[in-house]
Amino acid sequence: MTRFALTLEFDGTPFMGLQRQAHGPSVQQAVEDAAHAVTGEDIIMHAAGRTDAGVHALAMRAHIDVAKDIAPFRLMEALNAHLRPAPVAVLACAVVADDWHARFSCTGREYLYRIVNRRAPLTLERQRAWQVSQPLDAEAMHRAAQALVGRHDFTTFRSVHCQSASPVKTLDRLAVERVGDEVRIHAAARSFLHHQVRSMVGCLTLVGMGRWREEQVGEALAARNRKALGLNAPSDGLYFTKALYPGE
Amino acid sequence: MTRFALTLEFDGTPFMGLQRQAHGPSVQQAVEDAAHAVTGEDIIMHAAGRTDAGVHALAMRAHIDVAKDIAPFRLMEALNAHLRPAPVAVLACAVVADDWHARFSCTGREYLYRIVNRRAPLTLERQRAWQVSQPLDAEAMHRAAQALVGRHDFTTFRSVHCQSASPVKTLDRLAVERVGDEVRIHAAARSFLHHQVRSMVGCLTLVGMGRWREEQVGEALAARNRKALGLNAPSDGLYFTKALYPGE
Repeated sequence: MTRFALTLEFDGTPFMGLQRQAHGPSVQQAVEDAAHAVTGEDIIMHAAGRTDAGVHALAMRAHIDVAKDIAPFRLMEALNAHLRPAPVAVLACAVVADDWHARFSCTGREYLYRIVNRRAPLTLERQRAWQVSQPLDAEAMHRAAQALVGRHDFTTFRSVHCQSASPVKTLDRLAVERVGDEVRIHAAARSFLHHQVRSMVGCLTLVGMGRWREEQVGEALAARNRKALGLNAPSDGLYFTKALYPGE
Repeated sequence: MTRFALTLEFDGTPFMGLQRQAHGPSVQQAVEDAAHAVTGEDIIMHAAGRTDAGVHALAMRAHIDVAKDIAPFRLMEALNAHLRPAPVAVLACAVVADDWHARFSCTGREYLYRIVNRRAPLTLERQRAWQVSQPLDAEAMHRAAQALVGRHDFTTFRSVHCQSASPVKTLDRLAVERVGDEVRIHAAARSFLHHQVRSMVGCLTLVGMGRWREEQVGEALAARNRKALGLNAPSDGLYFTKALYPGE
């Protein structure tokens, strides 16, 4: 068996999520089906993160174990050929050690959330960003975000479906910047709770609109109560952008 | 009657083109139908350019004449409401003089062509760029492009369906730059022939692949013969980005 690390890009729109689901298409199933078509083997894919329905990835990391003797470049090309027409692409493929694990070896995860801040509906960016009509104060959002950076109990920002053993996570970075009519939120942590990024973005957006005082973000965190959550941002604007591994 | 200038953004994918067509949906028809729904009037839209099926716009300019007494902001909001779910959005709307004409007053037009230069198929950028697998030398493309700048007979780069009275046009700018794995071609002129940008991009791409010598672009131009055209780039990567008007 050879273990291959994959870098995946995908448009999350047509999927129920990354992880295999009984009731609909998933990125995992698309890759596993392609890998089966290439190798004839029953292959399980493991990924760095479990993204929700509609969430995109620019560089999700994953691994598969393959018995067939195949070079990484040929495997990548064959997977891409068999993935069509699903909007999933293998950007890179490399042989890794047998104990390298896309999920358990991962020491950091990064997300980008894109808000298009304008009155007009989206056209080219439809399902690729969240359109917010009210003018957003990105600087106020950035200041408010700093209350969430560090080690905290993120119960307020956690889905009721979250399977994590603990609500305590260490958020390494939460930065908000304006680029033209776009507001971009960058989040980095070793790992995130289910819906954590979307929940944080939702509350920051309330600050940006002036509906929440900047201090209310920290107050919502301190409440450790899902009912203190102001708003969960839609999945369309969320992108998994990076997974970090030791030695890379 | 009040003349309103509109700035339009659209995803060209589902349209037969900007101009009204007997045999399928067009951007013009979408806007005229929305304007009719808002005003009850039979309204004709005039646009700065006539884009082909699949071609996008970030800021197409157009105008409509409206008898109903309505403020520009309210007209814009109402048009956007009625345009849904068509991927067309009115980004700006302003009252202009009765002799301001989106097409005839326009003194300059600009296009962007996006190539994603990588082996992996497109996912999030599908139908929003041209994927080219072979490595492209963007600097060679830029040098070759300079042979096309200036006043020339562009017969080689003109569709057989072109309705322009003359094949002579003045190309003000044709610049190629690489931004990561993307190659962007910027074109500016008072006006373009039908398929001119896509035809120029196609030939430059042959240069970028090393299949054409840089000098062959100038040679193809000098041939003044459509048969000298190397390749017409697909519509997916083309964006109308700007229309210029005196006094703006």
